[in-house]
Amino acid sequence: MTRPRPQAAGDTVASVGEFGVIDRVVARAGTAAAAVVGPGDDAAVLRAPDSRVVAACDVLVEGRHFRRDWSSAEDVGHKAAAANLADVAAMGAVPTALLVGLACPAGTPTAWLEGVATGMAAECRPHGAAVVGGDTVASAPGSDAVVLSVTALGDLQGRAPVTRGGARPGDVVAVAGRLGWSACGWAVLRRGFTSPHAAVAAHRRPEPPYAAGPAAADAGATAMCDVSDGLLADAGHLADASGVVLHLDRGTLASFVDPAGPLAQVAAALGGNPLGWVLTGGEDHALLATFPAAADLPAGFVRIGVVEDGAPGVLVDGVAAADVAEGLGEGTGHVHF
Amino acid sequence: MTRPRPQAAGDTVASVGEFGVIDRVVARAGTAAAAVVGPGDDAAVLRAPDSRVVAACDVLVEGRHFRRDWSSAEDVGHKAAAANLADVAAMGAVPTALLVGLACPAGTPTAWLEGVATGMAAECRPHGAAVVGGDTVASAPGSDAVVLSVTALGDLQGRAPVTRGGARPGDVVAVAGRLGWSACGWAVLRRGFTSPHAAVAAHRRPEPPYAAGPAAADAGATAMCDVSDGLLADAGHLADASGVVLHLDRGTLASFVDPAGPLAQVAAALGGNPLGWVLTGGEDHALLATFPAAADLPAGFVRIGVVEDGAPGVLVDGVAAADVAEGLGEGTGHVHF
Repeated sequence: MTRPRPQAAGDTVASVGEFGVIDRVVARAGTAAAAVVGPGDDAAVLRAPDSRVVAACDVLVEGRHFRRDWSSAEDVGHKAAAANLADVAAMGAVPTALLVGLACPAGTPTAWLEGVATGMAAECRPHGAAVVGGDTVASAPGSDAVVLSVTALGDLQGRAPVTRGGARPGDVVAVAGRLGWSACGWAVLRRGFTSPHAAVAAHRRPEPPYAAGPAAADAGATAMCDVSDGLLADAGHLADASGVVLHLDRGTLASFVDPAGPLAQVAAALGGNPLGWVLTGGEDHALLATFPAAADLPAGFVRIGVVEDGAPGVLVDGVAAADVAEGLGEGTGHVHF
Repeated sequence: MTRPRPQAAGDTVASVGEFGVIDRVVARAGTAAAAVVGPGDDAAVLRAPDSRVVAACDVLVEGRHFRRDWSSAEDVGHKAAAANLADVAAMGAVPTALLVGLACPAGTPTAWLEGVATGMAAECRPHGAAVVGGDTVASAPGSDAVVLSVTALGDLQGRAPVTRGGARPGDVVAVAGRLGWSACGWAVLRRGFTSPHAAVAAHRRPEPPYAAGPAAADAGATAMCDVSDGLLADAGHLADASGVVLHLDRGTLASFVDPAGPLAQVAAALGGNPLGWVLTGGEDHALLATFPAAADLPAGFVRIGVVEDGAPGVLVDGVAAADVAEGLGEGTGHVHF
C-alpha cells in the first residue's frame, strides 16, 4: 500500500482519483482487532470467534440525514458509525468492523472524506473495530449529494441473539440511553441556533449506550431494538414482531425531561413539548428492551412499562401511541419517504 | 412480518413508504442457508462456520454503472450481486449473504425495486445465499439517480484467504472467465444497438466464474483478484501488492478473441480492436490468479503469463501495460472519477 502524499489544500476526489481517496481514507481507518485481511484487497477477512456474524446496514444521505453546514465531517463519520454500531449492540453483540460504500460528487474535498474517516475510526476505536473495506464512486451526473452506506459486523461472544420478536406478556419494558436529545438538537439547528451545546452535540454525535446491548442479553432480555425512528415507532416494531402490547408509563417517560436540562430549556425557548421529542425523536440510538419480570435490569436501563397481551401495539397510560403523538403535535416517528 | 399487499400498477416508493418497500423486497429476497436471523430485525445473524468471515462492498450508481434504459431491473440486480459475489470468490471463499443499502428517488416504481431484488436473489440462489438485510432511504432532494451499495459476506470453508500480495517470481499467471465481453456489450449499447445478444447480455449480466475462486485456493494459488477494472489495471494492482512483474503473453490474450464470436463480430461492425476490450475492459469479473509453476491449474483457468522479479508492473510481450493500452487506443482500465 503506497502512503498518501501530503495533503494539498485544494485536493478533491476528482484531482486525487479513486485510489488516492482510498489511500487517504485507509490511512485514517485505524485497525480492526479482528482483521485477518484489512483494506486494499478484493474483500476483507475478519475473525468471527463465535462462528456467527452479526451484520447491519444503514444509509445516510446528505440533505436528509446530515448537512455539511450543520455537522463537521468528523461528526458525520461519528454519526454514520454510531447508527450501525447501535444496531449490532441491539442484537446483544459487540462490533468488529465497518464497510463503507460511498458515492460522492467529483468535487468533494478529500479533506472532508478524511474527516469522515477520522470520525468513523474514533467511534469504532473503543470497540477495537475499524473500517476494513468499502467502495468509493462518483455520484450520478448532476447529483451533488453524498450517499454513505455503512455495514457493521459484530460478534455475539456466545450470546443468543436478542431479536425484536421475543417479548412476552408480563415482561418489563426498559430503555437505556437518551431519548429526544437528537430531535431537540435538530430543532435548534433548524432555527439557525447552535446552542445549547449539549442538544446540538447530541444531534451531531449520538452516544448510543453500546455496552447496554450485550449486558441486556446477559441479563436475559427477551427482545431488543435500537431507537432510531423514535420510541413510539420502534416500540411499535417490537410489539408487532412479538405480537404483544407495550404499555408505557407516561410519568416515567416525562421524567426523561430533566427540568434543568437542554430539552426543557429548548422547549421553553422555542416552544414545543419536550415530551414529544422523548416519545417520537429518533437518532439517539437508545436501546429498548424487554426483560422477564424477575430479571435484574442491567446498569443504565430504566423501567418504562410492561408487556401485555392483546392486539399488537403501543399504549401510553392506556392511550394508543398515534393519539398520544397527535396530542403532542408529532407523528409517531421518523418517516423516510 | 406483514405480507405485501397486491401490486398496484402505479405504486412508487413514496406511495408505499419505507416499510412497504422493505416488505416487497424481502418477499423476493429468498432465504440464506446460513441465516440465523434474517431480514427485519436491527441486524441479521449468519452462521460463519469457518470462524472467519469474508466481507466485500461495491457501489453502483445509476448513470455510471447502469442505465435503466439499457438494463432491466432484474439485470441490475444480477449485476450488483455478481460484482460482490465475485469479490468473495476472489478470496477463495463461497458467498453466504448480501446486505443492500439503497438510496432512490421517492418516485421510483416499487416494481423496479422488486425486479432488482428478484435479480439479486436469482444471482445468489445457486450459492445458497440471499439478501439478509439492508436499508432503504430517499435520495437527496433533487437527485433522480439510484445508488445501490451492496455488501457480500462469505465463508472460507477452512481455506487460507488468497490475497493480491502473494505472487512470487516463477509463478504462473492464469485467468478464468471472460475478458472484454462486458466492454464489447457496452460499446454496442452506446451506439444504440442491442445485438449481438451475447455481448449485450454479458454487459447486463456478467457471469463470473465463481467456482474457480475456491478451486484456485485449493490448487495453491499464491495471489488472486477479480477483473473488475480491466485485466491490465487489475494485474497492476496484483503486481503492486505482490512487488513483482506480471509478464503476459500477447498471443495467448489475443486467443481470447474468438474469430467467430461477438468480440470479433462487433469490432468488425463498429471498428475498434477487440484485443483492447480483452486487455482493458472491466466488469466481466474474471478471476486473475497466480500459481506455483508446478501446480495443476484448476478447470477453467488459462495460463496467460509468468511472474518475474523487478520493479512492480505489468508487461505484455515485454511492453509496459500503459504503452500497450495506448497502442490499442485505450486507457489501462476503468477510471471511477
